[in-house]
Amino acid sequence: MAVYTDLTDEQLTDLMSNYDIGNVLSLKGIAEGVENSNFLLTTDYNGQPKKFILTLYEKRVNPDDLPFFINLMTHLAESGLLCPVPVKRKDGATLSNIAGRPAAIISFLEGLSLRRPEAVHCRALGASMAEMHLAAQRFDMTRANNLSIDAWPALYETSRQNADTLHAGLTNLIDGELARLKELWPDAHAALPRGIIHADLFADNVFFIGTELSGIIDFYFACTDMLAYDLAIVLNAWCFETDTSFNITKARALMDGYHSVRKLTPAEIDALPVLAAGAAMRFLLTRLHDWFAPQEGALVKPKNPLDYLHRLRFHKKTKSAADYGVEI
Amino acid sequence: MAVYTDLTDEQLTDLMSNYDIGNVLSLKGIAEGVENSNFLLTTDYNGQPKKFILTLYEKRVNPDDLPFFINLMTHLAESGLLCPVPVKRKDGATLSNIAGRPAAIISFLEGLSLRRPEAVHCRALGASMAEMHLAAQRFDMTRANNLSIDAWPALYETSRQNADTLHAGLTNLIDGELARLKELWPDAHAALPRGIIHADLFADNVFFIGTELSGIIDFYFACTDMLAYDLAIVLNAWCFETDTSFNITKARALMDGYHSVRKLTPAEIDALPVLAAGAAMRFLLTRLHDWFAPQEGALVKPKNPLDYLHRLRFHKKTKSAADYGVEI
Repeated sequence: MAVYTDLTDEQLTDLMSNYDIGNVLSLKGIAEGVENSNFLLTTDYNGQPKKFILTLYEKRVNPDDLPFFINLMTHLAESGLLCPVPVKRKDGATLSNIAGRPAAIISFLEGLSLRRPEAVHCRALGASMAEMHLAAQRFDMTRANNLSIDAWPALYETSRQNADTLHAGLTNLIDGELARLKELWPDAHAALPRGIIHADLFADNVFFIGTELSGIIDFYFACTDMLAYDLAIVLNAWCFETDTSFNITKARALMDGYHSVRKLTPAEIDALPVLAAGAAMRFLLTRLHDWFAPQEGALVKPKNPLDYLHRLRFHKKTKSAADYGVEI
Repeated sequence: MAVYTDLTDEQLTDLMSNYDIGNVLSLKGIAEGVENSNFLLTTDYNGQPKKFILTLYEKRVNPDDLPFFINLMTHLAESGLLCPVPVKRKDGATLSNIAGRPAAIISFLEGLSLRRPEAVHCRALGASMAEMHLAAQRFDMTRANNLSIDAWPALYETSRQNADTLHAGLTNLIDGELARLKELWPDAHAALPRGIIHADLFADNVFFIGTELSGIIDFYFACTDMLAYDLAIVLNAWCFETDTSFNITKARALMDGYHSVRKLTPAEIDALPVLAAGAAMRFLLTRLHDWFAPQEGALVKPKNPLDYLHRLRFHKKTKSAADYGVEI
């Protein structure tokens, strides 16, 4: 949950005077997202109550990245993807300033994020993710992935000396895997298709109404990287059970859904095991970092890094994309 | 903010199967109330999205008190007061159980809680509070005020030895005021009108749309006590500025609003200064308690007790209800 910043009546009135979306009916701080402050804003829009999300970007978001995120959402929504649409101000801008922070009002999407997605949801997500990847090919901004392989050694340094206190042998395992991934990571020559990826498609960022996907939110990790790396992240996030066992039925559904919209190239299929290990490494390292150096004022309990240790061990042993349910 | 309990998909599905209010469209944990977990629930009710609040009663609420709270809200709403209406289940009950906790679904009220209410809002609140007092006279349940004068010595014990570390001389001042209040507190012979009071009408519990009061929420401190004590609480909560100065214009508006619906008796008018001091003492003591013994797992920063020390000092010096804007 996260509402780091409270708003005064005057701040809200000032903000709303820049928009043409009706008068405020209510504003509730909501427990969504961990990086920013989010409010559910209801206005009387054309005489009907209408819901929006007001997001205040807190310090973990680089303000220079905001135009990328906002323009990406606008582009994807215009392309037909079910994602939040930033609302334009009267002056045509999409970013505001409130309580000393950059802020945006975006459309509200109905739907529930699932605690335990089933295969049918994985299939739907796969298809939507592929649509997102294709739609984003026509988006002309880029943003480097600052949490990819080059960033891992420095990220690891912050927790390396404590890692073994959490789990005996963890330091050795990470050292070895970092070396292996460096060796095997697809480089520019591998020519894996690149583009905009979401990079944080965890279950809390995907809404469903019944089995229908109703929205993808939280594009604040989106960046330019290998498209198949997004799939690798989702394999980790959606296809392992809470007991850390891998569910190949869900993986197969995810891959089938993706394939139904965009075919993976042979190079992507080859790279899947190492990308999956890399995705596990990325979340293992950020979780380790947050575990040992929790953010000042964070309202969120750090997540257990060991969930991703188990995943990393699994990926270390896989031999080919067939182990992830891809028909080769 | 407060969402102490997360819900699984199954828990939500189970819960909703007991109600006839449509399918869930979304569920957001919201930062409202400090005692319970609150969610904004949207369902497709008769084909339209409709908002409700789902409240899970956490350990600070005594389950035995819940029928009182729920029935009171139902009674007040049926009497025309703008307050949440508990939704009846298919079996006619209003209380459910989810995630091991008692829970209720109540109607959602639009409106903003004001950070800095103006006199016009105080007047509206005075009138609504008087309507609430009158409507509750026809409510046949009672609940003792377990945070009134008899409870203060024990409450004080939890922080007495630390009080001077927060503010030099605080212990002496509280000792003296507790003795004075015990001496002056209106007893049964004073025959002050009694009934159900809200007892926690802080600005976050009152919604406005513009200058119109649109809702009173959070009845979980409601109890049977002197009606004028509710006014005394609101005098403290609404009529002091952030620099702790007393704003008699707001007090006058509050009293005028109340009087326009229900006339205070001479005994109530006489008792106002001591009731105001008592209300300040009650919040000073609970805030001191929370300051020195913050609740385990509390997601809320303890409020500064000294705000109420300043109020208490003010009330100690007032001579009559005229000092609170009451025409005598």
